[in-house]
Amino acid sequence: MAKEGADMTEETEYMIDKNVKKEIDNVETSGNAKEMRAVILSGFGGLNKLRVTKKAMPEPQDGEVKIRVKTCGLNFLDLMVRQGTIDNPPKPPLVPGFECSGIVESVGENTKGFEIGDRVMAFVNYNAWAEVVCAPVDFVYKMPDEMTFAEAAAFSLNFVAAYMMLFEVANLREGMSVLVHSVGGGVGQAVAQLCSTVPNVTVFGIASCFKHAAIRDSVAHLFDRNVDYIQEVKKISPEGVDIVLDCLCGENTGKGLSLLKPLGTYILYGASNMVTGETKSFFSFAKSWWQVEKVNPIKLYEENKVIAGFSLLNLLFKQGRCGLVKSVMDKLLCLYEEKKIKPVVDSLWALEEVKEAMQRIHDRGNIGKLILDVEKSPTPLHNVGHCVLYAGRRHGTPGPPCLPRPQLLLAPHLQQRSISHQEGCFTSPVWSYRGGGCDVTAPEVVAGGQFSERDAGTADSVSPGHQSS
Amino acid sequence: MAKEGADMTEETEYMIDKNVKKEIDNVETSGNAKEMRAVILSGFGGLNKLRVTKKAMPEPQDGEVKIRVKTCGLNFLDLMVRQGTIDNPPKPPLVPGFECSGIVESVGENTKGFEIGDRVMAFVNYNAWAEVVCAPVDFVYKMPDEMTFAEAAAFSLNFVAAYMMLFEVANLREGMSVLVHSVGGGVGQAVAQLCSTVPNVTVFGIASCFKHAAIRDSVAHLFDRNVDYIQEVKKISPEGVDIVLDCLCGENTGKGLSLLKPLGTYILYGASNMVTGETKSFFSFAKSWWQVEKVNPIKLYEENKVIAGFSLLNLLFKQGRCGLVKSVMDKLLCLYEEKKIKPVVDSLWALEEVKEAMQRIHDRGNIGKLILDVEKSPTPLHNVGHCVLYAGRRHGTPGPPCLPRPQLLLAPHLQQRSISHQEGCFTSPVWSYRGGGCDVTAPEVVAGGQFSERDAGTADSVSPGHQSS
Repeated sequence: MAKEGADMTEETEYMIDKNVKKEIDNVETSGNAKEMRAVILSGFGGLNKLRVTKKAMPEPQDGEVKIRVKTCGLNFLDLMVRQGTIDNPPKPPLVPGFECSGIVESVGENTKGFEIGDRVMAFVNYNAWAEVVCAPVDFVYKMPDEMTFAEAAAFSLNFVAAYMMLFEVANLREGMSVLVHSVGGGVGQAVAQLCSTVPNVTVFGIASCFKHAAIRDSVAHLFDRNVDYIQEVKKISPEGVDIVLDCLCGENTGKGLSLLKPLGTYILYGASNMVTGETKSFFSFAKSWWQVEKVNPIKLYEENKVIAGFSLLNLLFKQGRCGLVKSVMDKLLCLYEEKKIKPVVDSLWALEEVKEAMQRIHDRGNIGKLILDVEKSPTPLHNVGHCVLYAGRRHGTPGPPCLPRPQLLLAPHLQQRSISHQEGCFTSPVWSYRGGGCDVTAPEVVAGGQFSERDAGTADSVSPGHQSS
Repeated sequence: MAKEGADMTEETEYMIDKNVKKEIDNVETSGNAKEMRAVILSGFGGLNKLRVTKKAMPEPQDGEVKIRVKTCGLNFLDLMVRQGTIDNPPKPPLVPGFECSGIVESVGENTKGFEIGDRVMAFVNYNAWAEVVCAPVDFVYKMPDEMTFAEAAAFSLNFVAAYMMLFEVANLREGMSVLVHSVGGGVGQAVAQLCSTVPNVTVFGIASCFKHAAIRDSVAHLFDRNVDYIQEVKKISPEGVDIVLDCLCGENTGKGLSLLKPLGTYILYGASNMVTGETKSFFSFAKSWWQVEKVNPIKLYEENKVIAGFSLLNLLFKQGRCGLVKSVMDKLLCLYEEKKIKPVVDSLWALEEVKEAMQRIHDRGNIGKLILDVEKSPTPLHNVGHCVLYAGRRHGTPGPPCLPRPQLLLAPHLQQRSISHQEGCFTSPVWSYRGGGCDVTAPEVVAGGQFSERDAGTADSVSPGHQSS
């Protein structure tokens, strides 16, 4: 694991410095160009399968609008696409990305409802991570004037998914309780905000400890992702909860079902547990698949429980429910304009920084949404230090109790850049640190275990503390 | 099968004539009696395990009301209780029955909200089929003045279950479509009526052909229970339906899931397929269990589907949701008073006729609810003819196409009495007819197959016709 992480980081640096910057210089960005920049996935695998390159400029077909993209959303699902972990993936090379915002540059024939210059957000079935995107009008929505492009890219997929799960699938009502995994992420934050629009709804959220301070206001009961959340929830609500929203899958399916009150609903909407390393892990995939409890409907009958799956992209692109999604979007835009909801943007990244953005979401480092900002220039990597931190052992393997996820306090110039937190297979904490100029303190990391420094050029600046709990 | 059916019928006659009538004569029915009549299940098994006998008069405990029972509801679940096919059944001897209506005769200490003389309906965790029942106030509801006792016993379980499935679990809304099995039964009729309270809801219903004329007004699309309903529904609605309500289980679980539109909900609320013969069939039980598709949540994710189980009795008596049920009952009573819903009573039976009532529900002969009327005297069997009809072969076994369920036109004095329709293992229709004084014509039975008479004392009165379809 340590080797893999280090390799990846070196490669990221290399790719951005040596290849991509050249391409950026070559690409014209005027509206009349015949080519555009796009992120290309050349084949399923690691971060090295991604690069920014030129592609032929798309032109809108009948019923389509051509969008000059400003920002794109990055989702955990994009990691699964990169690895080829999704069901029936399209054949690479492909341009990833399912959502974007931008300005209508032209419209195809028979395209009604949009005009050149309209500020829009759109769902697309791939191809979002590019300077220009064409999309059928059924998947395009006008942005409110006060919404920024970054907010728009953070809004569409996350809030529509959260809304439909809570109100279309689970029928959230006054007085109910909701447990949501990865509450610090884009969907998690949308869920928390939407729950606050219904009186007396209690949110239980699971997130890495270092996010808790930032999200505490939106979540009544926050648990660290390494604790036994079943016990923690039951301490507060012995009967369990009314709704469980699970983007992890694997063993969490059975746990989620067991936490439901009678008439409660468990919704599976992702399978991030299937992603462990940088490339597709057949072991993780198989384990996650096997751990998913196959549900006997007779058991649901006895327990009065509901289990559901939700995939917004399948709903849109395989099942043709754009009319329903449009009606949901209209409701959400009302809530936005009433200032009842507001998308949380974690960070903005240049297209050329997509790998680092992906690594950040892989490491669950984000609070809210990661955004690719098409007009942003990448920050040259050699100006900042790079830090890779490994701690703890893989959850569930035999050995002493897992360490809590390490806490990093970073110098400002390191924020949102180049930080890999990774759980390795170690039974005692090991930190690996390399690069220059970074000022790292980690007051809550070492839980009385050994502390070793490896490959640590300036490791003196890493000061181990002691666990607070 | 033929033998078993004939034996059962003989036994029924014997039990009622020789045993039960004696007991009736012995039981006092005054309000001061120390004993009361009740239906006793002496052990799990066939109809011969049921008898009416005397039991000690119950007295209300703290927070209970004592109800002088007028009518009780009979549900398919009661057959499963009799056979011991339910999960964790209580130990016999026991008094079956989960719902009744009657008049409050006295109240226990600390019992608030009810007075002597109140007309009430109640859920009880067994013990309903008796002259007197005591129940905690949380499970007792006042009846509207215009509601008859028979309607009340037909109302509580069926309408509460139907309402909760449609509105609490599945979130029925305008424009949706609902498929319901056994739409001619008590819950089925409640579902059809409640669907009519929501604009533009389409009901697809499955019921034996002979019920279609009686229920056609409440169900937009009616299918015979022997047709391939998946094909029939898809002819009308290629995308499927929004809600499937399944009381059959077995292979219908997979079929129901396959019929769901995206975001659709399948609800399992019974397992009547587990009941085939008169006594518990381990073969049917195992087959039904095995045929139930274990659902992988990842498949639900890909297909955007919801699967749920619903058991009102578990909700009430194991999961303590009487407050929620009370709120549902309040809404239903409003709908009743607005004349938007009205329970359908199939037939009234004396306690001593419980076996025949059970046979009627076993044979799916009922349209609406079967009611035990505590004050009714049994109709002596020797006054009417008795007819047993066997036709077709077991659905799904190899052989020529199944015959449609036979149609019986009965003389008025035979209505609601003593008729067993039973599907045997024959590959050609066989009728067995015995008893006297009954006038049977069956114009739609014989599908070009052989027609034979067995044990037919007055078989001349049976006139085979030809299949109309």
